[in-house]
Amino acid sequence: MIIKTMFDVPAQPVRMQDAKDVTVRVLFGPQDKAPTFAMRLFELAPGGHTPLHAHPFEHEVIILEGDVALVSLNGEKPLRPNDVVLVAPDEQHQFKNPSPSSCARFICLVPIAYQK
Amino acid sequence: MIIKTMFDVPAQPVRMQDAKDVTVRVLFGPQDKAPTFAMRLFELAPGGHTPLHAHPFEHEVIILEGDVALVSLNGEKPLRPNDVVLVAPDEQHQFKNPSPSSCARFICLVPIAYQK
Repeated sequence: MIIKTMFDVPAQPVRMQDAKDVTVRVLFGPQDKAPTFAMRLFELAPGGHTPLHAHPFEHEVIILEGDVALVSLNGEKPLRPNDVVLVAPDEQHQFKNPSPSSCARFICLVPIAYQK
Repeated sequence: MIIKTMFDVPAQPVRMQDAKDVTVRVLFGPQDKAPTFAMRLFELAPGGHTPLHAHPFEHEVIILEGDVALVSLNGEKPLRPNDVVLVAPDEQHQFKNPSPSSCARFICLVPIAYQK
């Protein structure tokens, strides 16, 4: 059994192309011997965003704090804390923080094979 | 892409033996075609608890609200919002709400094969 307080886990900048002002904390991953899926905490600074991209595995997302705009091929949808999202494999998606002043935070889970 | 607000998903009582005053909302499961893992929201009424039990798959847990006591073979540990837990396969565990007045809420994820 492993217990962590999420903000004690170090944040790393997300260096993907077209990511802006995003950090990630790997809460549970291969280093914890998580068997099936990995849990990560993403933080978007004001105006920050992930890249618009797609990949062959799903995301399950929980919005924890702040406003988040979810971009897909169908446009942009506003998300709030307590909203959850299943992004299916191969779906285009991008998470943006539209706030000029507040951080946005969300949990994003992926199959363990896709977590470095 | 599926978006839900977690409290819009109906809560069902947990009918496992030795569970007390626990409900579950299946946020993403087989009905959503979640490929790898299922996301559930558990709510413990004041004094409520899950059974002390073990099973051959892991849990990944995020405490969202309230105080939670996590029971294992090593005793009882207090958890607070923003704490996360990896319960390994076959580890004994129980979640209890020690509060006399407040609900406790946590997300618990499992491999999809174990979600009915």
